[in-house]
Amino acid sequence: MEKNNIVSPDGVRLSEDKNSVIIIDQTKLPNRLEYISLDNAKAIYDAISELKVRGAPAIGICAGYGLYVLARHIKTDNAADFLNELAKQRDYLCGSRPTAVNLSWALNRMYVTAEKNRDKSVAEIVDIMENEARKINAEDIEMCRSISEYGLTLVKDGDGILTHCNAGPLATSRYGTGLGTLFLGKEKGYNFHVYSDETRPLLQGARLTSYELYNAGIDVTLICDNMASIVMKQGKINACFVGCDRVAANGDTANKIGTSGVAILAKHYGIPFYVFCPSSTIDFSCKTGDDIVIEERNPEEIKEKFYAEPMAPKGVKCYNPAFDVTDNELITAIVTEKGICRAPYTQSLKELFGK
Amino acid sequence: MEKNNIVSPDGVRLSEDKNSVIIIDQTKLPNRLEYISLDNAKAIYDAISELKVRGAPAIGICAGYGLYVLARHIKTDNAADFLNELAKQRDYLCGSRPTAVNLSWALNRMYVTAEKNRDKSVAEIVDIMENEARKINAEDIEMCRSISEYGLTLVKDGDGILTHCNAGPLATSRYGTGLGTLFLGKEKGYNFHVYSDETRPLLQGARLTSYELYNAGIDVTLICDNMASIVMKQGKINACFVGCDRVAANGDTANKIGTSGVAILAKHYGIPFYVFCPSSTIDFSCKTGDDIVIEERNPEEIKEKFYAEPMAPKGVKCYNPAFDVTDNELITAIVTEKGICRAPYTQSLKELFGK
Repeated sequence: MEKNNIVSPDGVRLSEDKNSVIIIDQTKLPNRLEYISLDNAKAIYDAISELKVRGAPAIGICAGYGLYVLARHIKTDNAADFLNELAKQRDYLCGSRPTAVNLSWALNRMYVTAEKNRDKSVAEIVDIMENEARKINAEDIEMCRSISEYGLTLVKDGDGILTHCNAGPLATSRYGTGLGTLFLGKEKGYNFHVYSDETRPLLQGARLTSYELYNAGIDVTLICDNMASIVMKQGKINACFVGCDRVAANGDTANKIGTSGVAILAKHYGIPFYVFCPSSTIDFSCKTGDDIVIEERNPEEIKEKFYAEPMAPKGVKCYNPAFDVTDNELITAIVTEKGICRAPYTQSLKELFGK
Repeated sequence: MEKNNIVSPDGVRLSEDKNSVIIIDQTKLPNRLEYISLDNAKAIYDAISELKVRGAPAIGICAGYGLYVLARHIKTDNAADFLNELAKQRDYLCGSRPTAVNLSWALNRMYVTAEKNRDKSVAEIVDIMENEARKINAEDIEMCRSISEYGLTLVKDGDGILTHCNAGPLATSRYGTGLGTLFLGKEKGYNFHVYSDETRPLLQGARLTSYELYNAGIDVTLICDNMASIVMKQGKINACFVGCDRVAANGDTANKIGTSGVAILAKHYGIPFYVFCPSSTIDFSCKTGDDIVIEERNPEEIKEKFYAEPMAPKGVKCYNPAFDVTDNELITAIVTEKGICRAPYTQSLKELFGK
């Protein structure tokens, strides 16, 4: 397999002729690096719905460019008709993955921008939408860069880093959140030694994180999730880096299943455990992790997915929670684009984000 | 898939005509329950070497019956010639899996028994060998039953039990060691709720433990290794049960990779962690776990094995230790066939086994 630098060009971008969104089809990784071109509503819908593009920020960026591309295709000079049609496209795309917060957020932002400029010509509105989509993308890059800059203050050259799941460029725009420090560090000449948990059952660590790091020339070793303890015990790990799906007001953090286990091991071995968190992920309406509902997914992901034949008896029950909650007491620091928060989180998060 | 009670008949047994060893081909599980008949030296060698039969006690039993079957096939009435030929067969079989302690132990026990009776007729020696092979099997059943009886004193009806890897009937004779308490409990009317770690990379928990428990009618739920933390946090687990590959004089325990992580999680959540340990597994020549060498296996087990296509980039490094060592301070008790040992283990193991 050729090494491809997927930090840049980005995994989601607008085509040069602006008639389509170009994405990396993440379902084909790591075996095939395929860019696909999305030039109609159904193609965009399917790409999001079938996880060809995944990771909340990446979905938002794809939706932003996507709605712009669809806007270009609307054939009318009448702004009201244009907005009517645009609203339909927005609502259609919004159904592609209803629980992804960034999806509806980006689509609404794009639509509201168009609506605010309804007194302009359709051509002008479309141009303004292009700017807005590029802004969503640029803001995400800036957010990732800022998080990663803060992350770099927590580690030193040569450190061993354990990662769980994937919060890299593929899931965002550039750099990533949980992995951003590693990519930015690489640009700045740091040599990290990364251990990537494979992250069962969907193997985002094996398929995506090890792929991204390997292709960027970062030293990465793939391990099974249950090997985290032995590499920590052997002194190979100086810090654990994870992303997050939702952070409660008290710092309790929902992230990919297995994250809480990594945090407990890290505490046992005296290793710092860092959560990388875009401020959009902090949910001040959740007081604690107990308020976070855990999605339970299909047992077939454990028993059959990816395998040549089933790996468990047909009738046997499976429990397949997609996330778990890491107690705030296990988290050394929460790294945001605005700064680094430490315990007590209820206070530090409130201070930094003024809520 | 039909439910098959694989607690009895055993996974390794002598055929009725005594001309072959009948085993369950464990490599075909859980998709196909296939009994295969081993009636010559190469077939026995290959079955052990290719892990069709696995688990130290089961390998020993297979080797015992196997050498008896081969002895029956030796065509001579001269005891010296017979013993010469028998020694060759023993040495050949011994190479099938050189690191399995029970293999050489069982083969030598069989050979020494024959040699001690060299003044008898070949027919008589062969009969004595049959008895010895059956004794190895019976002793293992007795050992498993005794360990399981002690295990039952540590839990109560309705308990939730987390298991890691496989130390059940397939790996032994009947009942098993780590799983024996569950099977014996089932016979006695206990209703356990078992959570079986799938145990990457070779999936013994998914392929074998969940298969054995499911077929015995025991309530079992399969989880990925990284879900152990969430089920413990949810209060579903009252005790953790694991087998062991080697126990040092101070109680440090080598077992399947991931065991130490389960023990650390159990300690964090205040859940008892029990090691089930045939006394043959205690190695008093190892002072601590630091003396135990950890076997490192092929990276392809992580990246490719069982999958329809590779799940990680071709060039990426993997670290694949087959075992890890659980510190004695994490172990609530070590359950042997002679009784239950608790900390300090250096003292309690010494007292029980008089070394």
